[in-house]
Amino acid sequence: MNRIKPLALTAPIALSACNGTPDKPNIVFFLIDDYGWTDSSVQYGEQLYPYNLRFNTPNMQRLAGMGVVMGNAYACPVSTPTRACMMSGMNAARIKVTNFTSLEKDKPSDAIGGAPGSVNPNESDIFANPEWNHNGICPAAFRPDSARLGLNHTAFVTPVVQLLKDAGYFTVHAGKAHWAPAGTPGTNPYNYGFAVNIAGGSNGHPRSYLGADNYGNTKDLWDLAAIQNMVEYYGTDVNLTEALTREALKALDYPVRHNQPFYLYMSHHGTHTPIQRDERFVQKYLDAGMSEKEARYASMVESVDWSLGQIMQWLEERGVADNTVILFMSDNGGQSVGSAKGGEDHTQNLPLREGKASVYEGGIRVPMIFYWPGRTKARRENVPAMPEDIFPTLLDIAGVRSFSTVQTIDGVSLLPTFLEGSPIDRDLVFHYPHQWRVEDQEDIDFLSAIRRGDWKLVYRMHTGALELYNLKEDIGERHDVSAEHPDVVQSLAAALSSRLKEWDASMPIVRESGLPVPMPDANTRLSP
Amino acid sequence: MNRIKPLALTAPIALSACNGTPDKPNIVFFLIDDYGWTDSSVQYGEQLYPYNLRFNTPNMQRLAGMGVVMGNAYACPVSTPTRACMMSGMNAARIKVTNFTSLEKDKPSDAIGGAPGSVNPNESDIFANPEWNHNGICPAAFRPDSARLGLNHTAFVTPVVQLLKDAGYFTVHAGKAHWAPAGTPGTNPYNYGFAVNIAGGSNGHPRSYLGADNYGNTKDLWDLAAIQNMVEYYGTDVNLTEALTREALKALDYPVRHNQPFYLYMSHHGTHTPIQRDERFVQKYLDAGMSEKEARYASMVESVDWSLGQIMQWLEERGVADNTVILFMSDNGGQSVGSAKGGEDHTQNLPLREGKASVYEGGIRVPMIFYWPGRTKARRENVPAMPEDIFPTLLDIAGVRSFSTVQTIDGVSLLPTFLEGSPIDRDLVFHYPHQWRVEDQEDIDFLSAIRRGDWKLVYRMHTGALELYNLKEDIGERHDVSAEHPDVVQSLAAALSSRLKEWDASMPIVRESGLPVPMPDANTRLSP
Repeated sequence: MNRIKPLALTAPIALSACNGTPDKPNIVFFLIDDYGWTDSSVQYGEQLYPYNLRFNTPNMQRLAGMGVVMGNAYACPVSTPTRACMMSGMNAARIKVTNFTSLEKDKPSDAIGGAPGSVNPNESDIFANPEWNHNGICPAAFRPDSARLGLNHTAFVTPVVQLLKDAGYFTVHAGKAHWAPAGTPGTNPYNYGFAVNIAGGSNGHPRSYLGADNYGNTKDLWDLAAIQNMVEYYGTDVNLTEALTREALKALDYPVRHNQPFYLYMSHHGTHTPIQRDERFVQKYLDAGMSEKEARYASMVESVDWSLGQIMQWLEERGVADNTVILFMSDNGGQSVGSAKGGEDHTQNLPLREGKASVYEGGIRVPMIFYWPGRTKARRENVPAMPEDIFPTLLDIAGVRSFSTVQTIDGVSLLPTFLEGSPIDRDLVFHYPHQWRVEDQEDIDFLSAIRRGDWKLVYRMHTGALELYNLKEDIGERHDVSAEHPDVVQSLAAALSSRLKEWDASMPIVRESGLPVPMPDANTRLSP
Repeated sequence: MNRIKPLALTAPIALSACNGTPDKPNIVFFLIDDYGWTDSSVQYGEQLYPYNLRFNTPNMQRLAGMGVVMGNAYACPVSTPTRACMMSGMNAARIKVTNFTSLEKDKPSDAIGGAPGSVNPNESDIFANPEWNHNGICPAAFRPDSARLGLNHTAFVTPVVQLLKDAGYFTVHAGKAHWAPAGTPGTNPYNYGFAVNIAGGSNGHPRSYLGADNYGNTKDLWDLAAIQNMVEYYGTDVNLTEALTREALKALDYPVRHNQPFYLYMSHHGTHTPIQRDERFVQKYLDAGMSEKEARYASMVESVDWSLGQIMQWLEERGVADNTVILFMSDNGGQSVGSAKGGEDHTQNLPLREGKASVYEGGIRVPMIFYWPGRTKARRENVPAMPEDIFPTLLDIAGVRSFSTVQTIDGVSLLPTFLEGSPIDRDLVFHYPHQWRVEDQEDIDFLSAIRRGDWKLVYRMHTGALELYNLKEDIGERHDVSAEHPDVVQSLAAALSSRLKEWDASMPIVRESGLPVPMPDANTRLSP
């Protein structure tokens, strides 16, 4: 365990007067929200699927035509865990930020056990909520003040952005933060080492994408999810995705002028709910016969694609494209319930099973493209990637070899995989010990999973059931082959149990016994 | 008229890879809001006045003990004009931003002529509002798009901050902006050349200074004046003045590490209304027998003083204090009506007459201190300063000798005055052709003034009356000596008229005639 004292954030650091470091590449991390694996005209799978045909994403295609398209990139089932993993390098189960954080402090977002209106008589009532870090993550520099600040249920970490800033990067946060609730230092991008923050706070989605709605800043719409610092565009027809793009590029003017390397975390709220038209793009989808909801979503997808294109064009115009790495990704699988996007529930990520919040592939498999001009070749790559890999990958790109952290890093650098297709030998662990919504969804709530090679084991805490899928033959996880491969089930259940135990992972509490849900290898089926 | 094409904001600028420019001093411009000339334990006048004894401002005193205390520093009567003058170098009458801008576009803030509830039967009803730039200022780079953006009633300027950024400064905006309404590019600090914006927007004051109120971001309090980007402190006991200070210092970390010169515009909302306790400081004032309102205000004053001290301490800790210039100032005179601060109306700036929004000295004479370590000597200086002087003064400090602007600069650099006491030979013009509040105040509304040496002429548009005061003998402007000095009156009236005509200054419209109010030298008294 490499638990080392954190670097003091305010310690003066000796840097030479000459700070031009053109050897360090600029990094644009372009992250989209709730954006599914097939929500693109880019092919991530072994084939094009029907959903791919719905979308028009020419800039993503252009990037894919130059970079590495990752076919097996993963995120956590929901937003905050992915972002916490990226910032810390830890697996979500170890950091115990396994669900999204609320707008306000000390309010676990779990949909049972005291959530408003959560009188739901279904089987999840056999569980009480787990203990988890529902106040999210926080930079380790604040740990000494945690008692005074009331920072319980918080994971303190050395943020990767701070290490990039320490290495000379001009670090820009644009868009969604969502690492922690309001009223905590973890909610503030500046505390993570960002030199500029455009609009990041505790909100996991906007109240509105429309300038006409002031992005939620009207008397009728306002709540804590209203978008901050976009006053210029109030009352205009500028969509939030466009406004964030414009502001992000303004922020890059300083480092480009000064020949200083920059890290842009372009963290779009799109394509999260509310699903609203981007008027610039919607008509063609309506004309193509899509329903209003489907066309709205497709216009939001094209809106983030437009943003990517704007950034690429700007990099070229400013003469820094050749020295800028672009990493493109989504923070979890596409939303597939509630029908906000149209269509029948649970079908929006076909052929993948389920969607956001589930450990089935629809909830965790996400688009990812990596492009390093002159170093990557256009190709598809199937080595799996995890969100905790972002931490060491960013430092590897930046050439930061020596650093210390208060936390143990679970991720590994993806750079050798991106550049040379190097395999990574490891099991992938996903853990969601929560009920997502008041309406229990048995394919979403209280699930864990482990993937090894093409095998994937899913543990259903509701019933204790273990399911086994062969992803190579059955990407849709339709055929449980656990009965045919008891040895694989046993081995993977043991491996998953071992990880969860080692990490002291959060587990729901069985109401009847008052004890945590048994480990996957306990081979004990709960009575329904 | 040096009207030159603006520099393109996005043009790549050739800078060497080595950007350390330790020859350029850092600049902290510490601006307080609605902070009166006697609201301090620092002596700005020829003597200490009773109000000075109410306040405890040890950090201002420390700064005054090292720098130049300006006894005749002026601002405009209200906030936006002062800020527009500072950003542009123009006199308020020339730039035609003579009143504060509203939260929303296209809504002149004048209290007559359509303002809500403005059925006021007093003499101001003889006037309709003047035409003025009620949408504030806007960076000149947006002028080509002004029709598309609906930017009427807007003054386009080359911003001084852009010139500082062009010269290599890392430019930080913290706190109040208030150059323009929401929905315009002029509301966004990034457009003026700021590299970082903490919380600046269209609001002229906060809805609350209290973390417990989320600085206005609660369902009950929220409106467009709610403070943005302070989510970290929601629900805490951190006063807004403290929160802005903390965030500003976080932003300075980057340039200090990289040995790059910085410009911090520390633009506090304090001590503007709402007058609320800073709990850290209020008790001593209550114990001293002040009323609740008076004690609240004194605690807000000590709060901004604390902020100044924190910044000075931080500069020392980071080893940059010796190379950092501090300019300290208020944006207009102290508030003196509405009794928000306690006491009888119109007495809060004694011995000065009136307060905020008036061209009498209480509304325009403000605290100012300048400190350049190793270059200034502690002393008092009585050469008058104007808000439009800030533009050339900042550039002079930064060593920027060559620049072009779309606007004509009226201000002159104060640096020779600060360093050597150099006199400046000019008349000072103040112009407020507005009604400030629905309740007409004859010593506030519709006034112009000109100062030459110790003489000050006040033009009352209501009546056409001209008053003359000798400020040396009568700082309180109690004794109109116009009858004794008709030659001085005539000369100053001609000079003021000449300026207003040359600048095509905004004038109220006489309802009866439909014509603008006559110039001060028209010698025409309107019938009451």
